[in-house]
Amino acid sequence: MKAKVHVTLKNGVLDPQGKAIGNALTGLGFAGVSGVRQGKYIEIELDERDAAKARATVEKMCKTLLANTVIENYRIDLDA
Amino acid sequence: MKAKVHVTLKNGVLDPQGKAIGNALTGLGFAGVSGVRQGKYIEIELDERDAAKARATVEKMCKTLLANTVIENYRIDLDA
Repeated sequence: MKAKVHVTLKNGVLDPQGKAIGNALTGLGFAGVSGVRQGKYIEIELDERDAAKARATVEKMCKTLLANTVIENYRIDLDA
Repeated sequence: MKAKVHVTLKNGVLDPQGKAIGNALTGLGFAGVSGVRQGKYIEIELDERDAAKARATVEKMCKTLLANTVIENYRIDLDA
């Protein structure tokens, strides 16, 4: 089973990396870019076959390692 | 209009960051992790209202700045 995890900064948390991308895009001549946010995208290949168990495991992974829950949100999608 | 861009390493390209996450997860006691790949997730807020035009613009952004197309793939999703 494959888990797809998105880790994004919470609203209100400054995102200098996203800001830098936005400035670079404007510098390259792309007009009308009003905001850029950058996050992480992680694909995890799991041996687990049960979707509920897999989700619980990945949830725990996010809380302990993948996301800093003080400033980041995470979203988990499972592929069979 | 909001564009969501996923930038991922192509198959066969070494992913030391994903490897490090996999090792860390195993070290933390998560069994059955057979592979981890890490990519980037970028949200871009555009003033453009036309979906086709927005997609063309973001496609160009990916090719010129967001992705290194020699080793990375990108995927664009548009939210109205």
